[in-house]
Amino acid sequence: MSLLVVGSVAFDAVETPFGKCEKMLGGSGSHFSISASFFTEVQIVGVVGGDFGPEDKEILDSHNIDTSDLETVSDGKTFRWYGRYDYDLNVAHTLNTELNVFADFKPKLSDKSKSARLVFLGNIQPDLQREVREQVPGAELVALDTMNLWIDIARESLLKTIKGVDVVIINDAEARQLTEIPNLMKAARTILSWGPKALIVKRGEYGAALFTDDNYFAIPAYPLESVFDPTGAGDTFAGGFMGYLSSQPKLDDAAMRRAMIFGSVMASFNVEEFGTARVQRLTHDEINDRFRTFKQMTHFDEIPFERALVSSR
Amino acid sequence: MSLLVVGSVAFDAVETPFGKCEKMLGGSGSHFSISASFFTEVQIVGVVGGDFGPEDKEILDSHNIDTSDLETVSDGKTFRWYGRYDYDLNVAHTLNTELNVFADFKPKLSDKSKSARLVFLGNIQPDLQREVREQVPGAELVALDTMNLWIDIARESLLKTIKGVDVVIINDAEARQLTEIPNLMKAARTILSWGPKALIVKRGEYGAALFTDDNYFAIPAYPLESVFDPTGAGDTFAGGFMGYLSSQPKLDDAAMRRAMIFGSVMASFNVEEFGTARVQRLTHDEINDRFRTFKQMTHFDEIPFERALVSSR
Repeated sequence: MSLLVVGSVAFDAVETPFGKCEKMLGGSGSHFSISASFFTEVQIVGVVGGDFGPEDKEILDSHNIDTSDLETVSDGKTFRWYGRYDYDLNVAHTLNTELNVFADFKPKLSDKSKSARLVFLGNIQPDLQREVREQVPGAELVALDTMNLWIDIARESLLKTIKGVDVVIINDAEARQLTEIPNLMKAARTILSWGPKALIVKRGEYGAALFTDDNYFAIPAYPLESVFDPTGAGDTFAGGFMGYLSSQPKLDDAAMRRAMIFGSVMASFNVEEFGTARVQRLTHDEINDRFRTFKQMTHFDEIPFERALVSSR
Repeated sequence: MSLLVVGSVAFDAVETPFGKCEKMLGGSGSHFSISASFFTEVQIVGVVGGDFGPEDKEILDSHNIDTSDLETVSDGKTFRWYGRYDYDLNVAHTLNTELNVFADFKPKLSDKSKSARLVFLGNIQPDLQREVREQVPGAELVALDTMNLWIDIARESLLKTIKGVDVVIINDAEARQLTEIPNLMKAARTILSWGPKALIVKRGEYGAALFTDDNYFAIPAYPLESVFDPTGAGDTFAGGFMGYLSSQPKLDDAAMRRAMIFGSVMASFNVEEFGTARVQRLTHDEINDRFRTFKQMTHFDEIPFERALVSSR
């Protein structure tokens, strides 16, 4: 029942039209692991600097996230990201990135990490993703996220990494850019032909879709009247998805579908406040309430049209 | 069980990256009524010119569409639209519009039309929509479509028309433009506050959503590997939606949800060929097959997360 994530643990500074936060816990590894912690036991592989204080670590600890493979470089500084959103909250403008201790990060997995049942390769350099992937040959399911940067500058390495995973989780622009195919259905088919068993395409306010060789599942996003800070929504989705799967004995299509809903539920909470603030204090009742709302907002009775009702056809 | 539509009956010339058609039956009234004819009896109110030949009328007749209120101005010419699509098929470029007989169109409803149970006010000048609406005071449900043009040049009239209908069917850009509110949920709430009981927002390749005061229903689009000609997709959706509703004894939330699916099914066929070509030769089995596919691609088991599975929370 364990889930391993490799990803960044960072301090983010974010400015949106609704407010500003100078420094908060961020990074794909943090968002993912806090989200997943509501469903399963999580171990995180990553690196932080000497400026990562006990109050930062306490956030992870209080969610029972195993940080024994979270390396601390005492004389280094934690990865920092400075971003800004305008009213189109779908587009993050990166103002500055300071890799700091992440620049020389070499993921080292303990025996416990190596025995993880599920693995998530967060959005980091694809060579590093592959290094981690190769250390967990026995994992039942390995998923990865990536971004336009790696498609631009490390395409060949990324394709190699994708070949070795079971699930790819990206957004629709990335799926099109990666395949150079504008039609999403064709792009999905192409990515699946490279090896993965499943592709999840995140579409922001339009929801998400799950493609497998013989199934297609699509869901809307949870309807929100206001989005406060979208930073980490994708990783929080992945955390809910992988975390829920990790709690399930069978990783079949039905479990993957429910996992898509839990991922969307977690992402919907994430965007309501800065950083991980909202997700940190979630309850299982709140999560299950939104899961049920998803059912209500997508359900219809399966009654085919009865042509007998029409007199003249 | 009858459904009335007022809308344009036109000849379209369309160019897409995949082909070109110099002249084919088009217009909101044509697309709507052919689509709706698979579910119910349809009467069309509109106007054509002397160039509207028997072979054109035969398309409507063969679908049992009642054309007794389709006026012919023998010395006039039928409305013509010339459009082009580039690879982004979501955007129609209007090359030319010739209103012709439509310029002086005054909808005149026969007694039969006035007794219709359901009414669809296709995308025409909002004053004309209101003239029709006022002639069917006893209709159980009246819906309207509109477009950015009328929001730009006839906003006050359009708002007056919207106050008098039950259902508004528009796309998401139009919902935002109409309300000047970027968030779709808030925009929807605002439109509902003007009077309509329901708002349907069409989102093209992302599906559609139904908003009522106490319900929200959202569906993805039918996944298509290629879109050939999107002209009339919105009217074909509305035709499937209203046509199915017209076949139902009760116009409740459950029927509206199924109607959303049938609308999406019809629109998915419409875009596969030029104009109304694909929809014209549809069978009820084909329609029901795609309805079932919608169920398959949106269904998930409603099993909330069991926290007992997680040891330490």
